[in-house]
Amino acid sequence: MSAVSLYEPRQVKAYMKRFMIYLGVPEEDADIVADVLLAADLRGVNSHGIIRLHSYYGNRLQKGLIDTQAQAKILQETPISLALDGGNGLGPVIAYRAMRRCIEKAERSGIGVVTVRNSNHFGIAGYYAMMALSHDMIGISLTNSQPLVAPTYGREAMLGTNPIAVAVPAKREHPYVLDMATSVVPIGRIKVYSESGETIPSGWGTDKDGRPTKDPNLVLEGGVLFPLGGTEIMRGYKGYGLALLVDILSGVLSGAAFSTSVGHPDTLGHADVGHFFMALKIDLFRPADEFKSSMDELIRMLKSSPKQSDQDRIYIHGEKEFEQSERCKNEGVPIFLAVVNSLRETGALIGVPFDLEPLGGAY
Amino acid sequence: MSAVSLYEPRQVKAYMKRFMIYLGVPEEDADIVADVLLAADLRGVNSHGIIRLHSYYGNRLQKGLIDTQAQAKILQETPISLALDGGNGLGPVIAYRAMRRCIEKAERSGIGVVTVRNSNHFGIAGYYAMMALSHDMIGISLTNSQPLVAPTYGREAMLGTNPIAVAVPAKREHPYVLDMATSVVPIGRIKVYSESGETIPSGWGTDKDGRPTKDPNLVLEGGVLFPLGGTEIMRGYKGYGLALLVDILSGVLSGAAFSTSVGHPDTLGHADVGHFFMALKIDLFRPADEFKSSMDELIRMLKSSPKQSDQDRIYIHGEKEFEQSERCKNEGVPIFLAVVNSLRETGALIGVPFDLEPLGGAY
Repeated sequence: MSAVSLYEPRQVKAYMKRFMIYLGVPEEDADIVADVLLAADLRGVNSHGIIRLHSYYGNRLQKGLIDTQAQAKILQETPISLALDGGNGLGPVIAYRAMRRCIEKAERSGIGVVTVRNSNHFGIAGYYAMMALSHDMIGISLTNSQPLVAPTYGREAMLGTNPIAVAVPAKREHPYVLDMATSVVPIGRIKVYSESGETIPSGWGTDKDGRPTKDPNLVLEGGVLFPLGGTEIMRGYKGYGLALLVDILSGVLSGAAFSTSVGHPDTLGHADVGHFFMALKIDLFRPADEFKSSMDELIRMLKSSPKQSDQDRIYIHGEKEFEQSERCKNEGVPIFLAVVNSLRETGALIGVPFDLEPLGGAY
Repeated sequence: MSAVSLYEPRQVKAYMKRFMIYLGVPEEDADIVADVLLAADLRGVNSHGIIRLHSYYGNRLQKGLIDTQAQAKILQETPISLALDGGNGLGPVIAYRAMRRCIEKAERSGIGVVTVRNSNHFGIAGYYAMMALSHDMIGISLTNSQPLVAPTYGREAMLGTNPIAVAVPAKREHPYVLDMATSVVPIGRIKVYSESGETIPSGWGTDKDGRPTKDPNLVLEGGVLFPLGGTEIMRGYKGYGLALLVDILSGVLSGAAFSTSVGHPDTLGHADVGHFFMALKIDLFRPADEFKSSMDELIRMLKSSPKQSDQDRIYIHGEKEFEQSERCKNEGVPIFLAVVNSLRETGALIGVPFDLEPLGGAY
């Protein structure tokens, strides 16, 4: 584990907001971006947090690759649906507003489905799915992303790690929050193994000829990621099917880019990322309170079921993240020293010095 | 491969229909069940076809465990949603009618979502999802099932192989039809390896202590199936999350049984299986014709992308099944001789002799 420092979450958010405002983002929008990025760090998904502030957002804003003044345009609308053009604005801002509209529709009509074209990287998918929870709704959030995953029997990256996020409220238990890439692992995980000189398990990625490899460097040098499942014998074509489904719902249905046309947030050019959001009101089917009690029952059955001899706990999806989030709110949000150094450097260059004092040392 | 005989599909369907009618099923309902089971055999999913005629359906009908006269009861309804109680009727009949209602709602309002409680095993999930295709809709069909899969770190079967089926129309290409169990493999696959004396790949199932095993017999003797992904290092918790999601939407949301309460179709007692169906009209978001052209484009991009050196073809989900179905319609539907023998035996016992003449020999 690399060394980390702990920072006060509100200060971290305030810094990211200042950073965005300085680059021309309206205050309200800057607040949304900062909140989405902070949520990733709080939940332990630090690959999607402050580490991306410059590379995925600041960098594109500086180069004029994202329109800070974009207003989403309505393409089609019904009481239960909305098709939006994000106008090449900031992904988290477009996604947050789209999910708000989705929930409003579900409040009135029971269901809301919103598609978005012409957007950018939106951060963690789970953030938007979770917005439905306090409304006694089930929330769904999908997005496509730049190609990294090969179809089964293929050797070229044709699909993104296209995440699926679904949030379902419970009563006394933590909500169920699935937020998963449809590849076995994200590309960042391969980089971690490469940096530490470790081999990766077979079935995470391939070399440039599409052969499974244990060498992370071969994956990074022209190889691809396996979809969830891995090889054909482990039913990797199911993960391929899920990645493709996310591309269909986020990319094709919305009229955004799909497959290899989706832009990388690190590179020049129009990204044209597509999203799909849905909110479903529970009491269309049964009283929400009754439903949430059953959710508690299901969660407790799973958690109290017999464990493998070397394990003492079974988790529900989202549970670790809720606990990590609580911990961060009390103790501070951990930021790798390498990230702190890079924030100091780019902050100074851009003109928004990263001047936060850490709360404490290693974690 | 065991020996098979080929039969004329219409004759196979007619036999299954006679069988159902003889056991007290109304003619219209018998036709639905026969069509759903035949579709499984035609599509090459023979684990869910005529092989189940007696074990999952006839057997339960004889014992009065399924109500042949059941009428689904409406629990709650809106223009876009419907919550049904299946009255412990035949799964395929309830599911077919539920999906019909779902599509009617989507025709009028753009979206239809239908939950079902108090049902039974419904056959292949893909059948109902595919009903949406000719209406230029995306169809979704989910069901929970008897426990066979352990949560990550657990060693007891707490969730079914809970399938996810999604069908999306294309223009000239075959539609995308995902129809996947959320376990790595179904239990039937483990039995095939056990019978042939082969070892299974590590990551398909565990022994009774929850340890991964290559011995199919240890899985069958008190072990469990791994969710898609397999072990923790291969991200089996994502497959576990999907299996749990299907149980939430099919079981908890509908008010049906969930987790270990879901009954096995082979055994006595009320099954109380739950289903979830959804139909989404494509032209809520963009013109259906435009969408279907983009689907063709995406499908062609994937299929023409570079292949692994030992592969000459990349498949889209459902493609193999459409081709198999075409082949069966021309050449006949293959039925294993062991299944034919068992049909002859139970057919004679029940009073509906299996008297079909095969079209030809081995396949």
